[in-house]
Amino acid sequence: MSLPGPVHISEIRVRFPEVDSQGVVHHSVYLHYFEVGRTELLRDLGAPYSELEEEGVRLMLTHCDQFFHSSARYDDVLVIQTRLEKVSKVRMTITYRVVHKETDELVTSGSTTLASISEAGKPCAFHPRLKEALEKDIA
Amino acid sequence: MSLPGPVHISEIRVRFPEVDSQGVVHHSVYLHYFEVGRTELLRDLGAPYSELEEEGVRLMLTHCDQFFHSSARYDDVLVIQTRLEKVSKVRMTITYRVVHKETDELVTSGSTTLASISEAGKPCAFHPRLKEALEKDIA
Amino acid sequence: MSLPGPVHISEIRVRFPEVDSQGVVHHSVYLHYFEVGRTELLRDLGAPYSELEEEGVRLMLTHCDQFFHSSARYDDVLVIQTRLEKVSKVRMTITYRVVHKETDELVTSGSTTLASISEAGKPCAFHPRLKEALEKDIA
Amino acid sequence: MSLPGPVHISEIRVRFPEVDSQGVVHHSVYLHYFEVGRTELLRDLGAPYSELEEEGVRLMLTHCDQFFHSSARYDDVLVIQTRLEKVSKVRMTITYRVVHKETDELVTSGSTTLASISEAGKPCAFHPRLKEALEKDIA
Repeated sequence: MSLPGPVHISEIRVRFPEVDSQGVVHHSVYLHYFEVGRTELLRDLGAPYSELEEEGVRLMLTHCDQFFHSSARYDDVLVIQTRLEKVSKVRMTITYRVVHKETDELVTSGSTTLASISEAGKPCAFHPRLKEALEKDIA
Repeated sequence: MSLPGPVHISEIRVRFPEVDSQGVVHHSVYLHYFEVGRTELLRDLGAPYSELEEEGVRLMLTHCDQFFHSSARYDDVLVIQTRLEKVSKVRMTITYRVVHKETDELVTSGSTTLASISEAGKPCAFHPRLKEALEKDIA
Repeated sequence: MSLPGPVHISEIRVRFPEVDSQGVVHHSVYLHYFEVGRTELLRDLGAPYSELEEEGVRLMLTHCDQFFHSSARYDDVLVIQTRLEKVSKVRMTITYRVVHKETDELVTSGSTTLASISEAGKPCAFHPRLKEALEKDIA
Repeated sequence: MSLPGPVHISEIRVRFPEVDSQGVVHHSVYLHYFEVGRTELLRDLGAPYSELEEEGVRLMLTHCDQFFHSSARYDDVLVIQTRLEKVSKVRMTITYRVVHKETDELVTSGSTTLASISEAGKPCAFHPRLKEALEKDIA
């Protein structure tokens, strides 16, 4: 029903060991960049994941996908555009676009779906503080 | 038209730094395991990627996805089941299932689509040696 | 006073993302290989670290060093030779040699010193089970 | 003969997958942080490594060591203090201190020694551009 939330921005510079023997960022590394974007999105919403963790919040990925459009190299500056796409009672989907800062060229896009889990690892309703933060963003 | 190829098997043991602060394998690491599976699949077909690289073969991921079903912990032994799903002129899709060796419980499944690219990074027909190896597997 | 313990052997195959843009294993990855060697050493001694962790054992690195002699490439098979070098009340030093399986050429050597710590992060005497295992190896 | 050069500063924020099951940054990750520091040091000197690479410069680690003093956690902001310690005809030693930004507490210190190598992997004199940059820093 609700529309996706606004874009949250973070920036990283490609590190030497993130690049493979073809000279380009290894595809697994974009999941780390997505996670940087997710960290900053939650901080922007006033609910940093490091604080949520202390309050017992556990999120678990249930699905992710990635599309690779162009490549990035060592020392490139990339912008991560992160957006809360959808929230249900126990699940949220976040989408990502990684672009070259200088040219705005799209490098990788993707999404992750995260479920709220209890300490026992079972799906459970979002923690009130997280729920409120998410609803503020996507309303 | 063709059916998926047979399952190729590899085995890994989870390393300590592959596990995150929740005590479970970080989702980005499964892409490394998928790549181990892909390496062994090509070796099984008589076309090891390390040799193909020397002959100028370049493969680039265009898409991947992962579904997370259960978790794996440090020192767990996992089996990677890899299967050539589909081959076109310039692209192939490989699917993966990672299961616990002891219980056969499914941990993660997913797929990667790889395109054959020229040194200039443009899509190009598969190198004859790779093409032959793939066709042998999926026929 | 005591001599170093016997060599414990493990084997790994270099994965694609472990290699950097120079085509060789990135130096940080050898610390992962050392950790594989350490895991197998403790398993050999009948005290797997995964079990020790459950009994509350915590080990923390206080120092490590690495010497790089030659390089390793994607898909190379390497042998990790691990040896308990020295044990004190709260500390142990383990040494490592990583060699090419085929040629026995030395790739990297190094050492790690690990301290036994309490849950509060303070140095403490080794857990009896670990102490016994270590003394059996180095006696 | 010469004294160490001035301290160069860079800053990073700890990413989620860099933390291990003990909740602290895995020791191998500090080598990535050292490399971030080294990248910024060379950029500060007007000789970015990404540009040097294009001119054929190759550097290879011959030794590194790390001392671990305290720990860092997910989302902590760390400052990397990098300093050119010593330069010879074919080798340089760089030292690093990683401290908590907020408290200045020392987390990890260490050094890396890098040799200039030819494309064939043999030690060779530093490329003139790099040599000049290094001498400017350490004079």
